Amino acid sequence: MSGGGDELKLLGMWASPFVLRVKLALSFKGLSYEYVEEDLKNKSDLLLRSNPVQKKVPVLIHNGKPVCESQVIVQYLDEVYSAAGPTFLPVDPYERAMARFWAAFIDDKFLASWLKAGRGKTAEEKAEGVKETFAAVETLEGAFKEISKGKPFFGGDCVGYLDIALGALVAWMHTAEVRHGIRLFDASRSPLLEKWVEHFNKLDEFVAVMPNIDRLVEHAKVREAEVAAAAANN
Amino acid sequence: MSGGGDELKLLGMWASPFVLRVKLALSFKGLSYEYVEEDLKNKSDLLLRSNPVQKKVPVLIHNGKPVCESQVIVQYLDEVYSAAGPTFLPVDPYERAMARFWAAFIDDKFLASWLKAGRGKTAEEKAEGVKETFAAVETLEGAFKEISKGKPFFGGDCVGYLDIALGALVAWMHTAEVRHGIRLFDASRSPLLEKWVEHFNKLDEFVAVMPNIDRLVEHAKVREAEVAAAAANN
Repeated sequence: MSGGGDELKLLGMWASPFVLRVKLALSFKGLSYEYVEEDLKNKSDLLLRSNPVQKKVPVLIHNGKPVCESQVIVQYLDEVYSAAGPTFLPVDPYERAMARFWAAFIDDKFLASWLKAGRGKTAEEKAEGVKETFAAVETLEGAFKEISKGKPFFGGDCVGYLDIALGALVAWMHTAEVRHGIRLFDASRSPLLEKWVEHFNKLDEFVAVMPNIDRLVEHAKVREAEVAAAAANN
Repeated sequence: MSGGGDELKLLGMWASPFVLRVKLALSFKGLSYEYVEEDLKNKSDLLLRSNPVQKKVPVLIHNGKPVCESQVIVQYLDEVYSAAGPTFLPVDPYERAMARFWAAFIDDKFLASWLKAGRGKTAEEKAEGVKETFAAVETLEGAFKEISKGKPFFGGDCVGYLDIALGALVAWMHTAEVRHGIRLFDASRSPLLEKWVEHFNKLDEFVAVMPNIDRLVEHAKVREAEVAAAAANN
C-alpha cells in the first residue's frame, strides 16, 4: 500500500530487535518495501553512506533519503503514512508524552537491564541486571495497567507506539525462555503483560515479520561464544 | 501567556541542564509558570509522587498532571502551546525525524562523552572522553551546516527543537571554559557552532533563564569534591 511512486528500502539485520521494530511499523501500516540484509561484519557502502554517524541498522531509505534510529523511524512512518493502518502515537498531547516517556523507559531501563543480565562482566553484575530487569517489568506492568485501561494493547483496541516498541522484544523474550527457562512476563509478576504477549503473538502483522526462534537461539549461542572469546583475548 | 486557567508548575534544580531545557522552552513560548526548586538530597513528596519511576527533575506539572524527561516535556509544550511563540519541531516529517535524531545524538553522544571527560574513573578514560567529545563536536558542526542552511539557528531564523536541546548546555560550556580554559565550540574546530553560541547568548529568552556562571563554577567545584570523597571512601 505504498503511496504514489514512494520507494521504501530498509537496511536491516534479521536478528536485531531494533530492525524488527521498523518491520513491525511497516507491517502494521501495510506498506511495501525492499528489505536489504546487512552483514554487520562487512557493512555495505550504502549503510555507511546512509548512517555515517552510527553506522548501524536499521536505516529506512525513503525516496533516497535515509532515516536512522528505530524510534525515530517509527514516528516518521506514523507521520508520513498517517492515513495507513492504525495511528501509532495517540492524538492527545498528554498521552503522546506518556508514550514517548515509556518508550524511552523500555530501551533505557528494561532493555538495558536485560542486556546487563546477559552480558555483565561479573556474576555480581549479571545478578544485579536480573534484579533490575524484573523491577523494570513490574514498573512496566503498572504503566500498561494505567495506559491500556482494560484494553488488550497499550494503544487500546489497536496496537500503538508502545506496542511496537515493546513488541520488537517479544521474539528475544521467547528466545530467553527457550535458552534459560526464564519468562520475563509471567502470571505472578506481570499478569497483564503476560496476556499482552499472548495477544501480540497472535497478530498476523507480527507473525509475518517475527524471526524464527530456533534460529535466534542458535544466533544467541554463537554471539555469546564470540563475546566470551573476545573477552578471553583481552 | 498561559492559556485560560492553565496551571504550569516546574520542579527543577537551578544548575541542571535538563531543567534549563524546559525553562528555555517555557521562555521561548512566553509561558508563565510556578518554579519550585528541589533539594536533590532531600526530594519533596511532590517530586517523588510526580516522577516515581526516575525520581528526577525536571518534572512539568500541567493542571495537576506530571510530564517527565526534558525532551518529552519540550515536545509536549510544543504540541499543547502550538500557537504560542515559535514552533519548535519543523512541520516536514523528514525534518522532524532529523531533529529527533540529532537531539538523541546531543544527549547520547555529545553530552555522554563530555561527562566521561569530566567524570572518567581513570586518566585514560578521561582522555578518551575528551577525544570523543571533540569528535562529537565535529559531527554536530556538520549537522548544523546541513540543517541550518546558512541561517543563524538549527530552526532557521527562529530557535527550534535542536537549539533548545543544545542551548541548555551552553551555560555549562561557559563554565568549562572558565574552569579549564577549554572552548568546546571554537573557531578552528567548529566555526559555525561558535557563531551559533554567540547568537544564542544574545537571546533575551536565554538571558532570562541562564544560571549565573560564577555560581555554576562554585557548584561544579563542590560537586567534584563530593564525587572524589565518595570515590576515596569506596
